[in-house]
Amino acid sequence: MPRVAIDVLLKREILDPQGRAVEEALPGLGFEGVRDVRIGKHLELEVDAEGDELAERLEEVCDGFLTNPVIESYTWRVIGEDERADA
Amino acid sequence: MPRVAIDVLLKREILDPQGRAVEEALPGLGFEGVRDVRIGKHLELEVDAEGDELAERLEEVCDGFLTNPVIESYTWRVIGEDERADA
Repeated sequence: MPRVAIDVLLKREILDPQGRAVEEALPGLGFEGVRDVRIGKHLELEVDAEGDELAERLEEVCDGFLTNPVIESYTWRVIGEDERADA
Repeated sequence: MPRVAIDVLLKREILDPQGRAVEEALPGLGFEGVRDVRIGKHLELEVDAEGDELAERLEEVCDGFLTNPVIESYTWRVIGEDERADA
């Protein structure tokens, strides 16, 4: 079963207060030169499908349950074992 | 300035109740065949550095501020304009 990573962010035209807060906190903590911070969700999951069927099922589950398509957008990609964020 | 995507998840040996809840809710909503769901944070930001300096500064900011290295792990990658989750 392919493992998929899904990244969800607020759409670019929507204010991201969490990202703004991090961006404003960083210089005070000694981290200069970081800009345009956006913060959202990262999901990793296994889906019992491949190819076109995988794409179709991911779009269904993302649009219908995992994201709010009114204010959020997402990308997804198949990842290998060595690309897991929890590796 | 390169734009960087950072994915943060709880380490694999740590229980992820949010991921478990999503996994258990999906079949009841008509989405079968999804397993091993892990949910964490996705960040996108611009950093005023490149190459080794970029890697060094990202590790500093991730280990020192954006993640809890005791229970979380992360990956980062430079992304293009078309790879933004808020594109």
